[in-house]
Amino acid sequence: MKDYLLTPGPTPVPPEVLEAMARPIIHHRTPQFQAILKEVEENLKYVFQTKNPVLILASSGTGAMEAAVCSLLSPGDKAIVVRAGKFGERWGELCEAYGIEFIPIDVKWGTAVDPNDIKKILEKDNKIKAVYVTLCETSTGVGTDVETIAKVTKGFEAVLVVDAISALGAEPVKTDEWGIDIVVSGSQKGLMIPPGLAFITMSDKAWRLAEKSTLPKFYFDLKAYKKAIEKDDTPYTPAVNLIIGLAEALKMIKREGLDNLVNRHRKHSKAVREAVKALGMDLFAPEAYSEAVTAVNVPDGIDGGKLVKTMRDKYGVAIAGGQSQLKGKIFRIATMGYITADDLKKGFETLETVLAELGYKFEKGAGVKTLEKNLV
Amino acid sequence: MKDYLLTPGPTPVPPEVLEAMARPIIHHRTPQFQAILKEVEENLKYVFQTKNPVLILASSGTGAMEAAVCSLLSPGDKAIVVRAGKFGERWGELCEAYGIEFIPIDVKWGTAVDPNDIKKILEKDNKIKAVYVTLCETSTGVGTDVETIAKVTKGFEAVLVVDAISALGAEPVKTDEWGIDIVVSGSQKGLMIPPGLAFITMSDKAWRLAEKSTLPKFYFDLKAYKKAIEKDDTPYTPAVNLIIGLAEALKMIKREGLDNLVNRHRKHSKAVREAVKALGMDLFAPEAYSEAVTAVNVPDGIDGGKLVKTMRDKYGVAIAGGQSQLKGKIFRIATMGYITADDLKKGFETLETVLAELGYKFEKGAGVKTLEKNLV
Repeated sequence: MKDYLLTPGPTPVPPEVLEAMARPIIHHRTPQFQAILKEVEENLKYVFQTKNPVLILASSGTGAMEAAVCSLLSPGDKAIVVRAGKFGERWGELCEAYGIEFIPIDVKWGTAVDPNDIKKILEKDNKIKAVYVTLCETSTGVGTDVETIAKVTKGFEAVLVVDAISALGAEPVKTDEWGIDIVVSGSQKGLMIPPGLAFITMSDKAWRLAEKSTLPKFYFDLKAYKKAIEKDDTPYTPAVNLIIGLAEALKMIKREGLDNLVNRHRKHSKAVREAVKALGMDLFAPEAYSEAVTAVNVPDGIDGGKLVKTMRDKYGVAIAGGQSQLKGKIFRIATMGYITADDLKKGFETLETVLAELGYKFEKGAGVKTLEKNLV
Repeated sequence: MKDYLLTPGPTPVPPEVLEAMARPIIHHRTPQFQAILKEVEENLKYVFQTKNPVLILASSGTGAMEAAVCSLLSPGDKAIVVRAGKFGERWGELCEAYGIEFIPIDVKWGTAVDPNDIKKILEKDNKIKAVYVTLCETSTGVGTDVETIAKVTKGFEAVLVVDAISALGAEPVKTDEWGIDIVVSGSQKGLMIPPGLAFITMSDKAWRLAEKSTLPKFYFDLKAYKKAIEKDDTPYTPAVNLIIGLAEALKMIKREGLDNLVNRHRKHSKAVREAVKALGMDLFAPEAYSEAVTAVNVPDGIDGGKLVKTMRDKYGVAIAGGQSQLKGKIFRIATMGYITADDLKKGFETLETVLAELGYKFEKGAGVKTLEKNLV
């Protein structure tokens, strides 16, 4: 059985990338590896749309999120944390772990934060040094308007920190143009390589705060990475073969071009939304959807866990269920990275098959037909 | 040109492992991946020679070292740090980063710590909660007698923490039998997979201390990993394809058997030491050598940097130079992991060729001949 991954990370890895990672390993303190790293650094700046260095960590995305707390802040600093899902909550957990007091903005799961709510807090509290938000909240499929939020934070001392782990490479992330101070990402989503690398880029404003940071840190001390990258080096042994895979993936992204890439994701995610509706199902986040992953309410009377499990174990098509409070209530179909139009067709064919098996009533073929129409 | 890696990490990756990592990626929250993780956990216990769980982190080895500080200690705790090279120094830097006061035992580079020196300090200071040592000090090629040190620490409240990053899979590490409390390791040495994974296992005594630890941490909070591993899971997205590669590498180690593996490394490292002497050169650590990497004094009048560079760039054989204060003064030949007898022969043929080019006087062929004799 051929397996299909329509999950919001890891996403399918292109054969070109798998091949690159399967080459005999090379040593990292050599001109050979340095040349690869140099190219990767340049292409990461292109994808992150920034002139600032993009630092590469050997860790999950959570590691880069932690770095955006412990390398940025000092005891006594305060933060705003937007919690609109499981990954927004993680920002809060990270602040808590470091004793950083934060004002949470708890947003109903499935909706996006109102940038004005951030503004109001910033106007009242001048101790706030950072605003933590999630661009694509993977757990709910919500996309956040970080462009507008950046306009808000620009007028304050606070630094805007954006978790773009599942958004980068799927949605526009115009770091410098919009004025986002810190962008964090991971490898196993839009960047099309396996998990194990995390990324972070910081504006001058953020670096000024980071220079003063006194929270304890070592592996996630970004100053060491910044110093190393100036010599196309890393402070600790890098994940060599993942970086070599990344070099290939970034070349593919550059060949496609960011505009085409964003348009492709837009088209795919719209097709998924329309197909879902054609099957008589509701989107979990109809107003504030992301282009990277679509969350769908499990129809009444259908077992959400069984739906996901049957698609995967009987038909080889992996989609994601709900997390935390949404377990069993939603399922999620990703459109990020190397997930192709054909993969989505296979996904909807299988979704229809399994929905029918589970006794859901719908017009057979309507999902696939609507999907195909929108994919043209 | 075919490239040869005789460096102390990354070491060559077996084709079976490269192939496994190049398979289409699978999702980590599936019974399929869980089954792999379960097998990996069992085989890691075999290699670490412990009944306790071996936790897997997506990070460089330094990440697991940091976890052995921030997940173990609390403000006010004191430590002993054995500094006999660059990686011993790192234990000190980590303690410093977290404000942990430590008593350094500075050992002349190229020699090993006297376990009695540790005992004397422990007897005087009952605030000491941890003793940090390095089994194989990669920067000097020194092997430390952790078996004897474990006998010392057993009588005290302090926990023995051993950096076995470059030793594991090359030298005996009898965690439970010797009574080592914490063993830390990495993926790119004796375990034969690319860098990007780190490992840590802890005794009940260490876990009791860790349960009380109040130093700030999140990604390196080992309690979360322990809780997850009980369900064959990981707290954050694991480095899926590295773990799948690891599954293959561990199968290879199990097929060979730990005794055979240790004997092979002993034979190889002895052959290297004898061959070096046959070329009229001196070992940097003649008394306290490790079986994982051999450090050699660069002969007078020879440019150590040029030796390493010429071997690599002209002949495709990568060995390592010296680090920090040993830059240009030593070169290092690794015998760990998948470095075979044939690789070592190629290494010494090339070493002789380049030594001759650089004007060093020696009996031509003596190194290779002695090596071969000892490899039988």
